[in-house]
Amino acid sequence: MNKNYYAILMAGGVGSRFWPVSTEEFPKQFHDMLGTGDTLIQKTFHRLSQLIPKENIFILTNERYNDLVFEQLPEVTKRQVVLEPAMRNTAPCILYASLKIQKENPDAVMVVAPSDHWIEDEATFTKNVEQAFHFCSKNKALMTLGIQPTFPNTGYGYIEFDNDSSETIKPVHQFREKPNYETAKEFIAQGNFLWNAGIFMWSVKTVIEAFKNNQRELYDLFETGIPAYNTEFEDDFIRDNYKKAENISVDYAIMEKSDNVYVIAAEFDWNDLGTWGSLYDKLDKDDTGNAVVNARTLSIESQGNMIRTKSDKIVVVDGLNDYIIVDKEEVLLIYPKSKEQDIKQVLQKVKDEFGVQYG
Amino acid sequence: MNKNYYAILMAGGVGSRFWPVSTEEFPKQFHDMLGTGDTLIQKTFHRLSQLIPKENIFILTNERYNDLVFEQLPEVTKRQVVLEPAMRNTAPCILYASLKIQKENPDAVMVVAPSDHWIEDEATFTKNVEQAFHFCSKNKALMTLGIQPTFPNTGYGYIEFDNDSSETIKPVHQFREKPNYETAKEFIAQGNFLWNAGIFMWSVKTVIEAFKNNQRELYDLFETGIPAYNTEFEDDFIRDNYKKAENISVDYAIMEKSDNVYVIAAEFDWNDLGTWGSLYDKLDKDDTGNAVVNARTLSIESQGNMIRTKSDKIVVVDGLNDYIIVDKEEVLLIYPKSKEQDIKQVLQKVKDEFGVQYG
Repeated sequence: MNKNYYAILMAGGVGSRFWPVSTEEFPKQFHDMLGTGDTLIQKTFHRLSQLIPKENIFILTNERYNDLVFEQLPEVTKRQVVLEPAMRNTAPCILYASLKIQKENPDAVMVVAPSDHWIEDEATFTKNVEQAFHFCSKNKALMTLGIQPTFPNTGYGYIEFDNDSSETIKPVHQFREKPNYETAKEFIAQGNFLWNAGIFMWSVKTVIEAFKNNQRELYDLFETGIPAYNTEFEDDFIRDNYKKAENISVDYAIMEKSDNVYVIAAEFDWNDLGTWGSLYDKLDKDDTGNAVVNARTLSIESQGNMIRTKSDKIVVVDGLNDYIIVDKEEVLLIYPKSKEQDIKQVLQKVKDEFGVQYG
Repeated sequence: MNKNYYAILMAGGVGSRFWPVSTEEFPKQFHDMLGTGDTLIQKTFHRLSQLIPKENIFILTNERYNDLVFEQLPEVTKRQVVLEPAMRNTAPCILYASLKIQKENPDAVMVVAPSDHWIEDEATFTKNVEQAFHFCSKNKALMTLGIQPTFPNTGYGYIEFDNDSSETIKPVHQFREKPNYETAKEFIAQGNFLWNAGIFMWSVKTVIEAFKNNQRELYDLFETGIPAYNTEFEDDFIRDNYKKAENISVDYAIMEKSDNVYVIAAEFDWNDLGTWGSLYDKLDKDDTGNAVVNARTLSIESQGNMIRTKSDKIVVVDGLNDYIIVDKEEVLLIYPKSKEQDIKQVLQKVKDEFGVQYG
């Protein structure tokens, strides 16, 4: 395995549309959402470790999830866990982690990947990332992995690539924010648009240079810390300085501002598992067309439901279609799949009425 | 308090239409179905103890519920708990208990009452039972408490009383089995029909005589045991003989065959709490028209639901009307109120599929 290959696993988010399973205390990536026996972060770590030495996979997360990371990824050492002391979107933590990795290995090429997505086909994922790594090793490229759109989804950003290129790896023309439905339809009709899945690849050298050129203030802030990184002085430096960083996404900070951006179209099936409905889509259905995790069900005239409980709980449901039925120790949710985008508001109401501990 | 007043509390049933709360291991009468802090048997015991000395209230139940009885009614002694070693309907256990009481107090008058009904107005209940007790003390009467019908219910038996009588206590013309809807409507139009609530009153002398006259075999069986009752030999006698008793209800065994049967119309509000729907009817509703026991609910466009969980569990429900939502540790039921009569079949399916321990 190539010792220059690195990964940053983004594991600081909450995934509140998966409430009540995903909570601030115990977010989605640390749950076995698919009922396979592995949590999403375990699956993602395993997938990356097909290509990248395990000791080169860094976990970017929040201080409160430190214990969960070590519990679920026992092969990971303290060195590999990078804690954000404050919520500052993706740019600051990616720059910080890149500088740490560069200090350790100036020849590193790396992938930044969310820890909570669904990608079943590990071999093709590995192939596509390796193609990108080769390209990034030889070129000053900021790369992203684009997903072939299957319908005019208005929930994702889009990547417009150069239609003239006949290469596998294509120059990116521009990033487009989440479109409305009409625009999304046009994107798909045009044929040179991919979904932005938040998976990036580059050499540490190139990404740090991009920060230096496009986010000078942010670069200067974290550049001061280089002598401290990977030493006993790092924690102090980060505690004092991280909070000063601008709250900005990596897309906005460097990708949209650079002209050396390239995309490779994923050849594997992908799902961001953003909502209960998308999880329903990915799961096998039982005889009655319900997706069931952990529960044992007696379903009468009921279909299209996403049912999740603790292990082996019996669920009897009659005359209910297209519902999210999620049972936890302290919370039971019975909610139409069609309103899944409103679960965030429901969660807010529950917190207001019954206490923040339920979110 | 009159030392001749006795009660037999019937507490051997299962109430399977209240599954999954009511189970064979832990039936309805031992649950706090109304969310008031008292179980149904505790409420019934308390109601009877307004008129009847506590030490004269006997509990007729199944051996497996022995511990539950002592746990929930700590004032009750072993003497007061009469265990049926085999399921034999109501006649054998009532005869057996009556003989025990007669041996202890030949002047006893008693009420037989289910332990799982809803009667809120204790004062009027006490008044009506006391009226019946007076009558039974002075007359060779088998009495029943009839409930004024409020609609043509096809789930109850009816009592047809003598229309000519202007007394509070009226001679019964005949008992009528559960009618079809048309017949039930006629009963109500006629005006001299009451619901049979399974509440009986008589002197021990009169009821034992009725058994002797109408069920000679049964009478002879239990008469042999008189020397043993209330002694150390009782358990042995019952273990050897109870199983020989005919499986027959007290209505069929003596009430329908006797001509000294009288009824008093209850002046209190009554509900047999036979189903989740009848419980819903009796409970206060929240702002959104749901009846909620123990749960804390966030209800969106949902009404007419009967919701029960463990204490303080949060239930979020959206777009669901007239459902029974019952959550237990191992079972979650989401079932239309309109199909509540089918819960027995659902329970059977659950037992067949997942094991008898869930019933």
